[in-house]
Amino acid sequence: MDKEKIKDRIRFIQEFLEAKGFGLQFVCSLDNLAYLTGVRPLAIERLTLLSIPQEGKTHLIVPKLSEQEFSHLSSLFDLLVWEDGQDPVVLVQGELKRLSPGLPLAADRGTPGYLILALAKNLPLDLILFNEDSIKRLRQIKNQEEVELLKASGAIADEVLKEVREFAKPGMSELEVASFMITEIMRRGAVADPSIPIVASGPHSAVPHHQTGPRKLQVGEPLLIDFGCVFKGYHSDVTRTFFLGEPSEEFQKVYQIVKEAQAKALSIIRPGTPLGSLDEAAREHIKKSGYGEYFIHRLGHGLGMEIHEEPYVYSGNSTPAEAGMCFSVEPGIYLPGRFGVRIEDCVVVEKEGPLLLTHFPK
Amino acid sequence: MDKEKIKDRIRFIQEFLEAKGFGLQFVCSLDNLAYLTGVRPLAIERLTLLSIPQEGKTHLIVPKLSEQEFSHLSSLFDLLVWEDGQDPVVLVQGELKRLSPGLPLAADRGTPGYLILALAKNLPLDLILFNEDSIKRLRQIKNQEEVELLKASGAIADEVLKEVREFAKPGMSELEVASFMITEIMRRGAVADPSIPIVASGPHSAVPHHQTGPRKLQVGEPLLIDFGCVFKGYHSDVTRTFFLGEPSEEFQKVYQIVKEAQAKALSIIRPGTPLGSLDEAAREHIKKSGYGEYFIHRLGHGLGMEIHEEPYVYSGNSTPAEAGMCFSVEPGIYLPGRFGVRIEDCVVVEKEGPLLLTHFPK
Repeated sequence: MDKEKIKDRIRFIQEFLEAKGFGLQFVCSLDNLAYLTGVRPLAIERLTLLSIPQEGKTHLIVPKLSEQEFSHLSSLFDLLVWEDGQDPVVLVQGELKRLSPGLPLAADRGTPGYLILALAKNLPLDLILFNEDSIKRLRQIKNQEEVELLKASGAIADEVLKEVREFAKPGMSELEVASFMITEIMRRGAVADPSIPIVASGPHSAVPHHQTGPRKLQVGEPLLIDFGCVFKGYHSDVTRTFFLGEPSEEFQKVYQIVKEAQAKALSIIRPGTPLGSLDEAAREHIKKSGYGEYFIHRLGHGLGMEIHEEPYVYSGNSTPAEAGMCFSVEPGIYLPGRFGVRIEDCVVVEKEGPLLLTHFPK
Repeated sequence: MDKEKIKDRIRFIQEFLEAKGFGLQFVCSLDNLAYLTGVRPLAIERLTLLSIPQEGKTHLIVPKLSEQEFSHLSSLFDLLVWEDGQDPVVLVQGELKRLSPGLPLAADRGTPGYLILALAKNLPLDLILFNEDSIKRLRQIKNQEEVELLKASGAIADEVLKEVREFAKPGMSELEVASFMITEIMRRGAVADPSIPIVASGPHSAVPHHQTGPRKLQVGEPLLIDFGCVFKGYHSDVTRTFFLGEPSEEFQKVYQIVKEAQAKALSIIRPGTPLGSLDEAAREHIKKSGYGEYFIHRLGHGLGMEIHEEPYVYSGNSTPAEAGMCFSVEPGIYLPGRFGVRIEDCVVVEKEGPLLLTHFPK
């Protein structure tokens, strides 16, 4: 990532800290770190932490093993390297010296519990706040470059859906289908989302987060495929529910309801619409059709460097949609032990309405 | 997982709580939860928490979306379900009522910071402790069933190494090779470790946690492959460094040193040997050979349901090896910008010495 962009983002956070009266921002979550540094750190087990003061230089606390990957950023950040066997908590506690007396610390949601407990021993509880609003704000509104990456990621997902629709046949296992999809994703220069594709056959389709397994696809059953890829750090996420063979009347009916519910939500997306009302529109339609109790999750989640991020689309959320926001619209009906239908596309909010990131037919 | 096994594990934890004077154990980390319930919960974003009191029934706080996957455990655990839009923290605070006055809470390392901060408002800081020793103890010593799964996972990795050695050719990209490996893993009924295989060509081999990318394999360069698979929940982890074409003298020399360093560590593994001395044996050999400063990580990490877990193998660790422990032995030499060599196998400690889980030639 461009150093100027990193500088801009850090400056935005510092202005926020000043405006809101925070002394210091800690950033620990892997995705926030990737967003602010352009480098994805190792697993959270190996603490990497960005410490951004209201004024002055940003420190990056980083494990020895990752020093090399971050070293090109040494003109922007002071690198504080911790070695194996050393406790990084001590380095983090040292950062509190940079906190003006009386000003609170803002920690991001990824800040681990053991760190909070250690900090609580040096700082009054009421000066430790979980706040990453500035980073959320930055990440929620995608700039043009990010929208292009989201579109590219969606286009790959569309291609893979086309391939898998031809490939998947009765007798294959869910895992075989997932494996084919991963290969197709990688052939296109992307990687599969770390949670492998959800390939849910028959009654498995009624489990929203089914774990793909050895079950074989069968004629006369639905096949739900929910997957995404990561292209240059940006996710796609799409779900289609197919039927192998001649769909039952009930399946067709449920499918139609879900499709209409999605269309209702999509039709009202524009800047200013409260996000909650999208969920309510889809839910209302499913309820009226008699399946209300079987739509057991929120309508959608934000998408970007993370597969689930702000904003979340659930009933009662009064946050207005804004140009540049990106989220999924994915109603579903799940009849336990029998079958489920989910249809999902992600959109970017534009002035005129939603820009769909996937276009595979429903 | 067998309900009796779950009961045994919960009982072990309860006995530990009683012996050590803890009132309650919180379990939040996904792997600990998978180990104790047999079900892998959703991402940490959707808080799932096991609350195990010294005496009495275990509570499982679980998001609505996951209720179905855990419902078969309702005879063992009371399920406390939280809905979208509801704050699970309130449910967790309710658990503190089950904590006898004056007794401390033991939280596992996965307990998120926002939860610790919320708990700190209801419980004195000195009664919040990060302790998961009972679970670590359980997980560290593998039983026969677990060893069989680790062996099976290692056997798949060996097969995939054999396939990829034949498959990988100059001109292919790292991602193509990784994609082939994922397919080979899945064809064998396993899944690839979520961090995609590390396929590091040429100078990339000098970055211990290189992120596999579009770079093409070339003749006259090393090819480092580090990967694992997950079979029925259990990991394998293995690294081999190949050379495409005729290896340079320096590469051969470095390779030989790393291979000898690994052999030295392996040769002293038996119950009672301090884990630190394995790291020291390998490190000493690399140092004597003049490459000491280029072995920049610890010798190994535990392996089981997680790719990195207890015990860790680093200099100074006085923990003695015990029968049933499983960990990696992976010395490496990394010459920045030039090339690196790492050789890794995982072992289970047995009475007579190490049981190797991978056997691919070095």
